[in-house]
Amino acid sequence: MKPIAPSLRIDRRALLATLALLAALSATLLPASAPAQTPGGLLPSWNDGPAKQAIFDLVRATIDRSSPNYVFPEDRIAVFDQDGTLWVEHPMYTQVVFALERVPAVVAKKAELKNVEPFKTVLSGDREAMARLPMRDLYKILAATLTGMTVDEFKAEAKTWLETARHPRWNRPYTDLVYQPMIEVLRYLRDNAYKTYIVTGGGQDFVRVYAERVYGIPPEQVVGTAGATKYGYGKDGKPFLTKEPKLLLNDNNAGKVEGIHMMIGQRPYAAFSNSTGDRQMLEWTGAGTGARVKMLVLHDDAMREYAYGPAAGLPDSKVGTFTQALYDEAKKDGWTVISMKNDWRRIFAFE
Amino acid sequence: MKPIAPSLRIDRRALLATLALLAALSATLLPASAPAQTPGGLLPSWNDGPAKQAIFDLVRATIDRSSPNYVFPEDRIAVFDQDGTLWVEHPMYTQVVFALERVPAVVAKKAELKNVEPFKTVLSGDREAMARLPMRDLYKILAATLTGMTVDEFKAEAKTWLETARHPRWNRPYTDLVYQPMIEVLRYLRDNAYKTYIVTGGGQDFVRVYAERVYGIPPEQVVGTAGATKYGYGKDGKPFLTKEPKLLLNDNNAGKVEGIHMMIGQRPYAAFSNSTGDRQMLEWTGAGTGARVKMLVLHDDAMREYAYGPAAGLPDSKVGTFTQALYDEAKKDGWTVISMKNDWRRIFAFE
Repeated sequence: MKPIAPSLRIDRRALLATLALLAALSATLLPASAPAQTPGGLLPSWNDGPAKQAIFDLVRATIDRSSPNYVFPEDRIAVFDQDGTLWVEHPMYTQVVFALERVPAVVAKKAELKNVEPFKTVLSGDREAMARLPMRDLYKILAATLTGMTVDEFKAEAKTWLETARHPRWNRPYTDLVYQPMIEVLRYLRDNAYKTYIVTGGGQDFVRVYAERVYGIPPEQVVGTAGATKYGYGKDGKPFLTKEPKLLLNDNNAGKVEGIHMMIGQRPYAAFSNSTGDRQMLEWTGAGTGARVKMLVLHDDAMREYAYGPAAGLPDSKVGTFTQALYDEAKKDGWTVISMKNDWRRIFAFE
Repeated sequence: MKPIAPSLRIDRRALLATLALLAALSATLLPASAPAQTPGGLLPSWNDGPAKQAIFDLVRATIDRSSPNYVFPEDRIAVFDQDGTLWVEHPMYTQVVFALERVPAVVAKKAELKNVEPFKTVLSGDREAMARLPMRDLYKILAATLTGMTVDEFKAEAKTWLETARHPRWNRPYTDLVYQPMIEVLRYLRDNAYKTYIVTGGGQDFVRVYAERVYGIPPEQVVGTAGATKYGYGKDGKPFLTKEPKLLLNDNNAGKVEGIHMMIGQRPYAAFSNSTGDRQMLEWTGAGTGARVKMLVLHDDAMREYAYGPAAGLPDSKVGTFTQALYDEAKKDGWTVISMKNDWRRIFAFE
């Protein structure tokens, strides 16, 4: 998990009226029928500009056999951070919301937690107080709510929750809040024989529950923060795996590169991301030879989504945000910054 | 790594003359031209029998849309142990030979190891003494020889070694000593949209060096024992990953199931294996619904390869071998035992 604190600092005003207006407007902006298989018709939710162009340039350079930067299909790897890159991460990481909402069920089984912090605060329902919980308390909550069950039980719980939970601003399932421009990039890369991977600070088991349905990414192509599991036998002699409260891979910062090495074993040609937790993954991608794209989503659209990081002039001392220092490294090293406001014609499929 | 000790107990007589005779014979046994795309023409290095039939039955049941056991292509996962299942594991695991042969180079850089055990024994060249080294000493050797370098350096070293090293019995590169019948199974399953994985107690980074070339399995489909890596920067500011002497995943026994969960996230429909280190992986595969095959290679062919485990009446107290207890569990739970002697018409491609 990436630290949650910064996310909670951000503006939460629901701009639903404006959004409705924008949705109506964006529909008129979309071309009536886009020609298929030409760059003009691809990535229709993107405005023309350097970000869209960088994606086209990578694909052109790596699939053309006569190109000096040609890449064999089996080596075409693209990695995507999830929170803030593929879907909305505000006002909280979705998985943290899941964990918080599981607290009452956990306390019902373990009454002794009722008057113990941080569970007491969560049970109080005081969202401001929850937002102030330090990382170590959030880890306690994650460990208590997301481990100690079999992997099949976890999967079933997460699936049920995702079907019923709603994002407070849009009142829609969290899985609706994926960025349509990125869905188009995933498909475009796969159409060109790229293997697309999620490399997330979020929990691997959680993301795998919906990644195939939402992103077209199978479980084995989701790399995330992973806890240990423990093999055992039921009374009927049938084996099962239990989720243990022991961290195996902290898939943040340098852990993202270490996770890519362990789970993929190849250096990516494209990395899409949005925060300082992705810095090393971008550096690692950029240190390869040939054509490589390193892209950072800048959340600069308070109207249609949120504005935070350098775009909002927020303090940059927290991990998990797009800091000024990251922005500077991006400029220096030729990483491409995606402006949600300027580069994305449409943000959500439901608009 | 699986313990090495039992492997070293085994008969090492070189039966080259007999092998040459068998090679000549086996050529005459092969059909002059096998019809393609029919079961009769598939798996040509297999004799007809229950093992070959079990593989055909699985594929038929899982690819036929009208079958009650139909499996969607994205869920078709098959896992293969490596040592003793895909290639020869005697007289030693290949990776252990690699580690032992790297000792002089390591000692040349760290002279203080010269008179320290177990390095002293390895430097003595006394193979009998090396064979008696306990597991903890072998781990010391593996840690000293296969970590402390960048992942790129490791890859280059392993590649060079594999090109020059020769198996003592056949005097051929180790990568020639893969079982042709299993290469055919890998291809047959892939032709039917199965994703084929190696799930090995051997080192993941080592196997990934040659898995694509030898087995047609890309790096991301090799799950193995994995050590931690550490991200850092060179003097030129370029990032690199160093292999650390710290175990992340011990991919043996229950660790194989835990590794499958972490790296694949789906339960396999087919598991191929040969030792007690694979027991839990077979159980886990078998505990799924629908059609599942669980197969164990029995090394019962001292003439063409080796005979060990129950076939040779060897003691069954060691991990890493096909023990009598495993044989009994196989019979009880309906796992399929592959007799190398009876089920395999040809063992190596070079025969």
